[in-house]
Amino acid sequence: MARPIRAHYRLGPIPGEPHASRADAIAREQTLEVPPGAATPDIEAALLGKVVSATADLRDGAPAHIVIEYARELFDGTLTQLLNVLWGNVSLMDEVLLEDAELPAWLLGDFVGPRLGIPGVRALVGAEEGRPLVSSALKPVGLTVPELATLARTLARAGVDVIKDDHGLANQAIAPFEDRVAAVSAAVADENARSGGRTAYFPNVTAPGHEIPGRVEAARAAGCGGVVLCPGLTGLDAMHAVAWAGTGLAIMAHPSHSNTSPNARRGIAPDLLMGTLWRLAGADCVVYVNARGRFAWPVEACQAVNRRARAPLGVHPPAFPVPAGGIQAREVEHWFRLYGPDTLLLIGGSVLEADDVEAAARGVVEAAHAVSGAGTDRP
Amino acid sequence: MARPIRAHYRLGPIPGEPHASRADAIAREQTLEVPPGAATPDIEAALLGKVVSATADLRDGAPAHIVIEYARELFDGTLTQLLNVLWGNVSLMDEVLLEDAELPAWLLGDFVGPRLGIPGVRALVGAEEGRPLVSSALKPVGLTVPELATLARTLARAGVDVIKDDHGLANQAIAPFEDRVAAVSAAVADENARSGGRTAYFPNVTAPGHEIPGRVEAARAAGCGGVVLCPGLTGLDAMHAVAWAGTGLAIMAHPSHSNTSPNARRGIAPDLLMGTLWRLAGADCVVYVNARGRFAWPVEACQAVNRRARAPLGVHPPAFPVPAGGIQAREVEHWFRLYGPDTLLLIGGSVLEADDVEAAARGVVEAAHAVSGAGTDRP
Repeated sequence: MARPIRAHYRLGPIPGEPHASRADAIAREQTLEVPPGAATPDIEAALLGKVVSATADLRDGAPAHIVIEYARELFDGTLTQLLNVLWGNVSLMDEVLLEDAELPAWLLGDFVGPRLGIPGVRALVGAEEGRPLVSSALKPVGLTVPELATLARTLARAGVDVIKDDHGLANQAIAPFEDRVAAVSAAVADENARSGGRTAYFPNVTAPGHEIPGRVEAARAAGCGGVVLCPGLTGLDAMHAVAWAGTGLAIMAHPSHSNTSPNARRGIAPDLLMGTLWRLAGADCVVYVNARGRFAWPVEACQAVNRRARAPLGVHPPAFPVPAGGIQAREVEHWFRLYGPDTLLLIGGSVLEADDVEAAARGVVEAAHAVSGAGTDRP
Repeated sequence: MARPIRAHYRLGPIPGEPHASRADAIAREQTLEVPPGAATPDIEAALLGKVVSATADLRDGAPAHIVIEYARELFDGTLTQLLNVLWGNVSLMDEVLLEDAELPAWLLGDFVGPRLGIPGVRALVGAEEGRPLVSSALKPVGLTVPELATLARTLARAGVDVIKDDHGLANQAIAPFEDRVAAVSAAVADENARSGGRTAYFPNVTAPGHEIPGRVEAARAAGCGGVVLCPGLTGLDAMHAVAWAGTGLAIMAHPSHSNTSPNARRGIAPDLLMGTLWRLAGADCVVYVNARGRFAWPVEACQAVNRRARAPLGVHPPAFPVPAGGIQAREVEHWFRLYGPDTLLLIGGSVLEADDVEAAARGVVEAAHAVSGAGTDRP
């Protein structure tokens, strides 16, 4: 019999609801979803989720950590169904967190994973092993296409490895997708030709699912090195379809609408979601919320995403962790040293608010070069 | 200038983080996402989210309710971008809940809404106005295709209005989608022909986005009356695309992976998500978690979903609220009377665990007929 998937849940305390019965309820909800006795004994034995482990500490008022096994026969080779079993109706329950999942080889082999991974993204931008990478963002929304192209030119001149669209740049009339991609790509290519640089541009292709392939093709045709996609908005399988298509483009997964936080007592834990599930779905770079920024994510949670993004995962290559969300230019060296060279730091606002954007971006790029090989947080 | 969208957020208390600065941070995060001063004054004036209202009670330790206005120019006519602005990066923050949204006519007109709505679903199953409707589910996963067809036949014979696939029936080898749809449709059609009944079958078409149109077409070709789709898994725009296609099929939206609960202090409030956003995306029936079932949803939250699903929403017809999730057969009359006739009650386990499934289902159907016109919870 194939090894089952094991899901780890954290149960926060709910007065009057014993952990053990909640564990059984989750195991049933996520599988048979009928009361005991309504399914045949054969089906109960083969397909009911099995609570295989729980923390010894089941005191009232303390959280419990439980493990449930799900049989292979429940899955159908899609990420949609994987999420449906791991985090389906249970997402409607209170005080439950999906904190980990043990994914057997048969499951890992169902998904394409990162096409480029860390080595491929390094090759794309010409960054030797041991050097951390720098990304910056085209924003704010409101800039016209020529203004975005000019900003991209400035960032390319500074030597930024990856220029990405802000996830807020969709297909608004102010700077429509196709015009934006054409103009920004041309500006970056021109600057690269001038400088001999290898800056890559990743436009945001997040859109209704049936429009994504056309946007990816437009990005490819314009010579972009990759794309930005928000799997929380599109669904994981939409990102997987982009990876599956094998366009040669890198995929940067962005967390908008992901409903995750290391401080949350419900949802999917960020490191599992971003470092494992997004990567299975083809993310070469996983954007998360860095500590000390605009969000209250602790540094340990960031390091957990880093570890997961780089950890072994079947045949799949590691993905670049992309700390983001309010990193200060003066602190980049700190983060590079803490997180290690296999990090793609995304710094937007702190560069864009500078009087001299090019000089500010160049300072970040120089810090990345200066710390090459000095990482301390490698797995 | 077009009327902006107004989003209502609840901020739970966070020690040391004043409500007012958190409100400003959300308004900036969801729009410009650059520090004050990094955008031009024109862009700040036109596109920065505006905190237009807040509860007077901003005491430390108490929650605050704030309203932020988002300019029309931020949107691009897609539900993906609507969610990106209303609930994008803010979904990564702690203690924030999107509790309401005021959607102007220009936005409502961007979306197709329910194609059938309550009147169309009534016509589909031949239910006169004033009679509540009954749905039951094909489950558990593990039943073979012939077993599912037999169960469907039993439920049709009992006079159930809508037979739906459990959302756990995906495309597993045990009962593959195409075989299941063909066999169950044939069984229901045969039973209808025999009895003169109008039972409709809604298979679950939740799948990776590029596979959904093929599944919907298979359902249509097999003579199904509608489909089940989980927008939390597929993304809202995937459901909207199904509605847009105008196949004539009803859409029943199911909440798997929706990360919502009336008790949660983060996420999107269930009534807004299910009663408004799903409906905009084309849901004719919105499945939610009924009180006194397997989940701890209070009855007031259920009534809020009911109200929203039936409330005026531009040109869009009302959708059937579908209370579900552990309703007891002996209580159906209570729910029909409380929720009123424009309700489609989904009762699965309590029927399926009966020794005589057909008799149990018939009892529910008879209760629906008995209370016709007796509703007390109409808007």
